[in-house]
Amino acid sequence: MYFHRQELQHKATPDKPDAVYARKLQEVLGGQYGEITVALQYQFQAWNMHIPGKYRDLVFGIGAEEMGHVEMLAVMIAQLLEKSPLGITDEAVQNDPTVAAVIGGTDVQQGIVAGAGARPVDSNGNPWMGSYITSSGNLLADFQANANAEMQGRVQVARLYHMTDDHGVRDLLGFLLARDTMHQNQWLAAAAELQAEGVESLPVPSNFPIGKEERDVSYQYINFSDGAAASEGSWASGPTPDGLGEFSYHEAPEAGVPMPPPTHPDARFYGTTDVPNVVEKLAGRAQDALKKE
Amino acid sequence: MYFHRQELQHKATPDKPDAVYARKLQEVLGGQYGEITVALQYQFQAWNMHIPGKYRDLVFGIGAEEMGHVEMLAVMIAQLLEKSPLGITDEAVQNDPTVAAVIGGTDVQQGIVAGAGARPVDSNGNPWMGSYITSSGNLLADFQANANAEMQGRVQVARLYHMTDDHGVRDLLGFLLARDTMHQNQWLAAAAELQAEGVESLPVPSNFPIGKEERDVSYQYINFSDGAAASEGSWASGPTPDGLGEFSYHEAPEAGVPMPPPTHPDARFYGTTDVPNVVEKLAGRAQDALKKE
Amino acid sequence: MYFHRQELQHKATPDKPDAVYARKLQEVLGGQYGEITVALQYQFQAWNMHIPGKYRDLVFGIGAEEMGHVEMLAVMIAQLLEKSPLGITDEAVQNDPTVAAVIGGTDVQQGIVAGAGARPVDSNGNPWMGSYITSSGNLLADFQANANAEMQGRVQVARLYHMTDDHGVRDLLGFLLARDTMHQNQWLAAAAELQAEGVESLPVPSNFPIGKEERDVSYQYINFSDGAAASEGSWASGPTPDGLGEFSYHEAPEAGVPMPPPTHPDARFYGTTDVPNVVEKLAGRAQDALKKE
Amino acid sequence: MYFHRQELQHKATPDKPDAVYARKLQEVLGGQYGEITVALQYQFQAWNMHIPGKYRDLVFGIGAEEMGHVEMLAVMIAQLLEKSPLGITDEAVQNDPTVAAVIGGTDVQQGIVAGAGARPVDSNGNPWMGSYITSSGNLLADFQANANAEMQGRVQVARLYHMTDDHGVRDLLGFLLARDTMHQNQWLAAAAELQAEGVESLPVPSNFPIGKEERDVSYQYINFSDGAAASEGSWASGPTPDGLGEFSYHEAPEAGVPMPPPTHPDARFYGTTDVPNVVEKLAGRAQDALKKE
Amino acid sequence: MYFHRQELQHKATPDKPDAVYARKLQEVLGGQYGEITVALQYQFQAWNMHIPGKYRDLVFGIGAEEMGHVEMLAVMIAQLLEKSPLGITDEAVQNDPTVAAVIGGTDVQQGIVAGAGARPVDSNGNPWMGSYITSSGNLLADFQANANAEMQGRVQVARLYHMTDDHGVRDLLGFLLARDTMHQNQWLAAAAELQAEGVESLPVPSNFPIGKEERDVSYQYINFSDGAAASEGSWASGPTPDGLGEFSYHEAPEAGVPMPPPTHPDARFYGTTDVPNVVEKLAGRAQDALKKE
Amino acid sequence: MYFHRQELQHKATPDKPDAVYARKLQEVLGGQYGEITVALQYQFQAWNMHIPGKYRDLVFGIGAEEMGHVEMLAVMIAQLLEKSPLGITDEAVQNDPTVAAVIGGTDVQQGIVAGAGARPVDSNGNPWMGSYITSSGNLLADFQANANAEMQGRVQVARLYHMTDDHGVRDLLGFLLARDTMHQNQWLAAAAELQAEGVESLPVPSNFPIGKEERDVSYQYINFSDGAAASEGSWASGPTPDGLGEFSYHEAPEAGVPMPPPTHPDARFYGTTDVPNVVEKLAGRAQDALKKE
Repeated sequence: MYFHRQELQHKATPDKPDAVYARKLQEVLGGQYGEITVALQYQFQAWNMHIPGKYRDLVFGIGAEEMGHVEMLAVMIAQLLEKSPLGITDEAVQNDPTVAAVIGGTDVQQGIVAGAGARPVDSNGNPWMGSYITSSGNLLADFQANANAEMQGRVQVARLYHMTDDHGVRDLLGFLLARDTMHQNQWLAAAAELQAEGVESLPVPSNFPIGKEERDVSYQYINFSDGAAASEGSWASGPTPDGLGEFSYHEAPEAGVPMPPPTHPDARFYGTTDVPNVVEKLAGRAQDALKKE
Repeated sequence: MYFHRQELQHKATPDKPDAVYARKLQEVLGGQYGEITVALQYQFQAWNMHIPGKYRDLVFGIGAEEMGHVEMLAVMIAQLLEKSPLGITDEAVQNDPTVAAVIGGTDVQQGIVAGAGARPVDSNGNPWMGSYITSSGNLLADFQANANAEMQGRVQVARLYHMTDDHGVRDLLGFLLARDTMHQNQWLAAAAELQAEGVESLPVPSNFPIGKEERDVSYQYINFSDGAAASEGSWASGPTPDGLGEFSYHEAPEAGVPMPPPTHPDARFYGTTDVPNVVEKLAGRAQDALKKE
Repeated sequence: MYFHRQELQHKATPDKPDAVYARKLQEVLGGQYGEITVALQYQFQAWNMHIPGKYRDLVFGIGAEEMGHVEMLAVMIAQLLEKSPLGITDEAVQNDPTVAAVIGGTDVQQGIVAGAGARPVDSNGNPWMGSYITSSGNLLADFQANANAEMQGRVQVARLYHMTDDHGVRDLLGFLLARDTMHQNQWLAAAAELQAEGVESLPVPSNFPIGKEERDVSYQYINFSDGAAASEGSWASGPTPDGLGEFSYHEAPEAGVPMPPPTHPDARFYGTTDVPNVVEKLAGRAQDALKKE
Repeated sequence: MYFHRQELQHKATPDKPDAVYARKLQEVLGGQYGEITVALQYQFQAWNMHIPGKYRDLVFGIGAEEMGHVEMLAVMIAQLLEKSPLGITDEAVQNDPTVAAVIGGTDVQQGIVAGAGARPVDSNGNPWMGSYITSSGNLLADFQANANAEMQGRVQVARLYHMTDDHGVRDLLGFLLARDTMHQNQWLAAAAELQAEGVESLPVPSNFPIGKEERDVSYQYINFSDGAAASEGSWASGPTPDGLGEFSYHEAPEAGVPMPPPTHPDARFYGTTDVPNVVEKLAGRAQDALKKE
Repeated sequence: MYFHRQELQHKATPDKPDAVYARKLQEVLGGQYGEITVALQYQFQAWNMHIPGKYRDLVFGIGAEEMGHVEMLAVMIAQLLEKSPLGITDEAVQNDPTVAAVIGGTDVQQGIVAGAGARPVDSNGNPWMGSYITSSGNLLADFQANANAEMQGRVQVARLYHMTDDHGVRDLLGFLLARDTMHQNQWLAAAAELQAEGVESLPVPSNFPIGKEERDVSYQYINFSDGAAASEGSWASGPTPDGLGEFSYHEAPEAGVPMPPPTHPDARFYGTTDVPNVVEKLAGRAQDALKKE
Repeated sequence: MYFHRQELQHKATPDKPDAVYARKLQEVLGGQYGEITVALQYQFQAWNMHIPGKYRDLVFGIGAEEMGHVEMLAVMIAQLLEKSPLGITDEAVQNDPTVAAVIGGTDVQQGIVAGAGARPVDSNGNPWMGSYITSSGNLLADFQANANAEMQGRVQVARLYHMTDDHGVRDLLGFLLARDTMHQNQWLAAAAELQAEGVESLPVPSNFPIGKEERDVSYQYINFSDGAAASEGSWASGPTPDGLGEFSYHEAPEAGVPMPPPTHPDARFYGTTDVPNVVEKLAGRAQDALKKE
C-alpha cells in the first residue's frame, strides 16, 4: 500500500517563470532515465523479488522516495510555466523576437494539452514507456541496472544545472544530485554485498552450468575494427573481474563458418525462390486462368 | 566504414524446425537488451566519443562484432521457421491440437509479414526502438550501461537455453553466453581502468562542483517503506564506494516542506480555478451572448 | 511525498498457477485503462491542479490508493506464474499438447525478461505509455475522463472475472470491481458538484466567450451516414444537456465550400507542381549539367 | 462504404502564413484527442456495435463528419505552411533573429518529410496511435468516452483560439468549437437515453452479478493522502449516483493483509533466491567445470 | 467531406467463427501495410497535393474506397469472434486442449478490451501508427510508395488466403486481392504517366540541380560485402534506368578519409575527455570542497 | 560477419557549428527513411532471402555501405554540435534573442541526454523503430520498397541541402545525393531484371492462383470521390502494366451489399445488446442481490 502526504521532500519553487526550462526538466521527470523510470523500476523489482529481507526492503524503501521526486519535478514545472508566455496572443509573441524565441523552445503540449502543467513525457515530448524499466529477478543484474540508471540520471541533472541561473531550480537540482550520489553509491554497495555474501557473483547469472558455455571464447578480446589500441587495455590481458580466467587479445576473428544455405519456406508464402520454379509457377498460373474460363 | 563477409562467426543451424522457439529468440535479437541494442549502442558511443585511443577502439571493436550476432540470430530464426507449421491450411492446424498449440505460440507476423523470416522486434512483437540505447558521452556511466546490457542479455540467453533441447540452437547459445561473459568482464574492466587512470571516478559525473550539491543528504539512506531490514545493509552504515563519505540510516524523511500554492495560469487555458472567479466568468459569458444578439 | 507499507489492501493470492491468466491480468495492470494509468493520471491532475481544497484532496487521496492496486496485481501475477510451465524444457512442453497449448497463450516476456514476474505492459505485451493519461487542468473535463477510465476499467475486470474459476483471483477481482464501482460513482458525483457549485458547467470549457463560437451549428445533428434512425434520439430534438439550446436534426450537411486551391510551396521542397514549370526545370537541369563540364 | 466530396464543410483558409501555428494545429488533427481519434473511434464503435438502430446510426453519422474535420485541418495546415519560412537558406534564417525564432517553433518534419504539408502526428511530432481510441462494445462506457474526447478536444481548440489572431484560422476554430459543443451535448444525451430506456445503467457494466462484487467497499471513500477536505464532498456522504448505495468516508484504509511470501520460480530463470541455495549452486558450478576438463 | 453509406462494397461474412484467424486478419486492417495505412496515406497525399486535376482526383478517389476496406475487415473480424471461444470459463478452455490451443493463438485484447470486436492494431497487437504513412508532396516518390504499399499488402493477403478454408473469408480476400491487383497496376501506370508527361522523372527529385550532386559516384556499384555475383546484375554495367548514365562495378570502396578528430564539447556536459584535463578537474573539485568548509 | 574500418567513405566535417541543423540532419539518420532504416532493411532482406547469388550479394553489398552512411551522419552531427550554444548558461541564451532563437530550434536531448552527440531518433526526436523496415521475402515487392526508400530519402536530403550554406555539410549531402541516385537506379534495375528473368512478375505476388482472385474487379478504376478528371489518366483505360488486362473506368461502385446483422457475443463480455434482454438482466441482478442477503 502507498500513502501520500501533502508535503514535499525538498523545496521546489523557482525564482521566476521559464517555459523553455520547464520543457528541459521533463527529461528527468519522464525520460528514459527520469524519475518515473526509477520509481516504477524499483517497485517492479520489489514486487517480483524472490527473497524477503534487506534487499527487498531496500528496493521498496527507495521506490517510494522516487515517487516523491516525480512529484517535486511536476510541481516545479507547473510553477515554471505559471507566468510564462506560452503562445497566448496578448503575450505579443508574433511581434517580439525575444518572446518568440522563448516560445520556439517550449513544449507546446504543456500549454495546449496540460493547460500549463507537467506531462509524463521527456524533453522532446515522447511519452514515458514501460520499456524503459528493467526488472529481471536477478538481483546482481538489476542492481547494476539501477546503478546505471542513477549514473545516467545524475549526468543529466548535472547538465541541466548549468542550463539555468534560477536559484530555486538550482536548489532543487542540488538536492536531486545529492540523492543520486546516494543512490549510485547504494546500488554499488548492494551489488558488492550480494557478491560478498555469495548470493550472486560474476558473470551474471553466476550459476549457469559452466560446461554449457563455449568457454574457449569467454575471455577473448576479438577486434572487429582496425584500432589497435584496444590491445592496450586491461580487457586484453591479465585476470578477468570474475576471477575465473585470463583475458587474451585477438586481432581479428578466426575464420568464420559458411552461411547455411538459404531457406525455402512453403511456396504459399510467395517468397522469391529459384528461377526454375518460376516456369512451373507461371504454367500453373496459366492453367488456373484456363480453368477459370 | 563497415564491411560484410558472407560467413558467420559461429555455426547457426538448428537440428529441426521450431516456430515457437523462433518467436522466443526474437527477444535477444530485437528486444530491449537484444543484439541490435548493443550493436547500435556501442557504435553510437564510438561516434560520440571525445577521446581517441584504446577506449574508442574498444567500443568500435565490439560494436561490429555485435552486428554479426544480430546476423547469426536472424539466420537461425529463418531456419527454425523454414519447415515449421505457420498456419498454412494444409498443415492441418485446425484439426490437430498439437499443431494448433504450436501455432498459438508463434509470432504470426514472422509468417504473414516476413514470409517465414526474422524481424526487428522482440518476443512479443514490439518493434525495436532507438530509445533502448544509452550513449551519454560520459564513459564511466556508459560502460556501466554496457555492463548492465550484457548482464541482462546473458540472463535472457541463459533462460532461453533451457527452453529448447535442440543441439544446434544450444550450440549457438553456448557461444553467445561465452561472448556475453567476455563482454561483461570487459566493460567492468574498462570501468575500473577509467577510475584507476583517474579519467573518471565516482560519483558519476565525478567533476561536478561538489559545493553545488546538497552534501548533507548525499550518503543518507532514508526509508520510505516500513521494512526495517534495510538498515542491516552495507548501504546504511560504513564508508561509501566513492570513498568520499559515510552512509547513515534514517528511518523516515525529516519533516517535508509545505507544497507551494497551486498555480494560476492565464485564464485562457481554461483550467479550473477558484469559485469566486466563476461568477465573473459566467457574467462575462452572458454579456458575450447579449453582445452577439 | 509517498510512503509504502509492506501490506496489501486486499488478499492477492491465487489458488493455483495459471500463466495464461497471468498474461490476461496484465491488461488491467499496464493497459490503456489499467491501474498504472489511473494511478499516474490522478497524481498528475493533483500536481497540475489550480485550486486547493476538497477536489485536490480527492485526487491525491485516490491516486495513492491506485498505486496499491498496481501492487496487488503485480504480486498476483508473480504468484500465478510461480509454478506454471513457462517453456523450460523439462516441463515437457513439446510433447504434451495440453501444456503446449498453455504455453501458446502466455506472455513469453514474463518468462524470458522478467524471470516469471509482472511487467509494465498490457495483455498483448505493449509497454505502458504516458500518452494513456489525461490531465488538462479543467476539472469537469478531467473528472469526465476519470469516470470514463473507471468505466472501461470495470468492464475489463468484469470480463476477466469470467475468464477464470480460481477463487483467489476472483476474490481480488471482486474487490477491484467494488472499488471501480466506488470510483465511477465518485467521479460522477464530483463532476455534478463542480456544476452545482458553479465552478464549471457545460459545454466544457464553459467560460469560452460564447460570441466567438459559430452558434448556428452548436446544436445541430448533421447526418453524414444514411441511417435515418438517428433522428429518433434525444440528441436530435428537444433541449440540450447544457441547458443553452435546442437540438435540431439535419439529414445532410448544407452545401459545403469549395476546396481552396492547392498550395505551391517553395520549389526547393521538390513537391510536384504544374507541368509548365517542368520544362523550365529540365532546362535548368541541362544548363547545370553543362556548366559543370 | 465511404464517399468523398471535394468540398469542405466550412471555410478553411488562413489570412496569412504561420508555420509555428501550423505545428500547434497538429494537436487537434493527430493528437490523443485530435480529429483522427474521434473519427476512427466512432467508426470502430459502429463496426463493433451489437444493436442496430438509432445508436448505431448516430455513431456512423458522426464518424464520417469527423473525417471531414481531419480534412479541414490538414488543408488549413498546408496553407499556413505555404509561404512560411521553413528553413530554406534564402529565407535568411541564420541572420534574422525574428525569422530564426519562428523556425525554432516549427515542426521541422512538416518541411523535411512532408514538403510543407500536414502530417498524422501531434504538436510535438508524436505519430498518431491506435491506442488513443476507445471501443469496448458497452455503449454507456463508450458514450462516456466520447463525451470525454469531445470535452478534452474542445478545451484544446479553445486554447488554440487564443494563440492566433488570424481571422481565417479563428473562423474555422469557431466552427469546430460549435461542433464540439454539439457533440458533447449529444453524447451526454445519448448516455442519458441509454439509462432512461434501461438499456444500460450505473455502475458500468450494470448487469455484472452484484453478489460477486465485494459490496462492503463499493461506496467507501478511503483516503490515502492526508488532505481532510475530501470528506466535505458529495462523494463522502449521501446517496450515490447509481442509486444503489450511500457514500461513507474513511480516513484511512483498514489494516491491510500481509504480503504473500516471495515467489520461487524454477531455478533456471536465474532469479536471485535464498542464500543457502547459493552454496549448492556454486558447488554445482565447480563440478560442472571439473566434468568439462 | 466524407459520407458513409450503410452498405459494404463486398460481402464480408465468414462461414464459421475463428478467433485465431480474427487475430491474423488484424494485420491487413491495422498493420504497417494494412488498410488504415493506405486509406490515410492517400488522403494525406490528396490534402497536401500541389496540383489539381487527374492526379489529385485519383488519390481522393481511392482513399475513400480504402476506408470501406477497413470497414469490411472490421465487420468480418467481429463476426469471426462472435461465437468463438475467447476465454470465458464455461467454454471449458482449461480442460480441452483443442480449445486451449485456439485460445493460445488469439488476440486477447479483442476479448478483454473490445468485447469481441476489431481493433486498430496489427496481428501482434501493436497499435497502428501515423509513422506508417508516406506523403512527401513529390508525386513520383509517393506513387512509388503507393505501389510498394499495394504490393506488400497483396503479398500479405495472399498468405492469409492460405491460412483459412473458410469460404466466406476467402471470398472477401479474393475481392481484396483483385483490388490490390488494380491498385498496383494503377500506381505504376500513374508513375509512368508522370514521367511520360515530363512532370517528374528519375532520379527523384528530378529537378535537383545536377551540378550539386557528386556525379562521380552516381552510378557506381560499390561492393561492401564479399559476394562477387553482384557484378553480374544489370545494376553493375550498362545504361541506368534514369537514362543519364552508365553503371560501373567497384569491388570495394576507394580508400576512405580519416575520421575527424573527436569532438570536445563544453566541459559542463561532463563527457569524458582527455586524461590531462582530469588532474585539473579533480583539483578543482578539491578546491570546491575546501571552499565549502 | 561485419568489420569496421576507422575511416569514413567521404569527408564529413562542417565549416562551422550549427545546432539547429544538427537536429534537422537527424531525419536522414534516424527517421522513417533515414540511413538506419535502409541499413537494417537491406540486411534483414539478405538474412531472410531464399536464393543465393547476385540478388543476395547485391543486398548484402549495399547494406554494409549504409551502415557507413549512418556513421558519417553521426560524426557530422557531433561536430555541428561541438561548439554550438546548447543552453549552458554562460552562453547567455536568456539575454540574446539571436542565441535564444537558435536554442529554440535544437533537439534538447542531443545536449541533455547525449552530451552534444547524435542520437537514433528523427528530427522531431521520435526514436527509430523496427516497424520502419520492410522485408517480405518477395524480391519484387522488396526491391520496390527499396526504390521507394531511396526516393523518399533523396527528396529529404535534397530539401536539407537547401537548409544550409555550410560547404562541409553540402559536400557530404552532395555525396549522399549521388549514392541515392545510384541506389534508386539500382533497385529499379534489379526489379526489372527479376521480371526479365521471369523470377517474379506483376502483379506481386505473381504466382498466386489467378482463379482465386475476383478477376472482374482487377482492372476497374472505381471512383469514390467526385473528381471526374481521374477518368483521364492511363489508369482508367488501356492496357495494364502487368500485361494481363485492360483498365476500365467506373464513376461509382456498383450497389453494395447490406451490412451483416450486428454480432451478439457472449453476454459476459457486457457489450450492449437489445433492450428486451435488459429487463431480464436487471431481474437477474435483483435476484443476485437477494441471494446474497
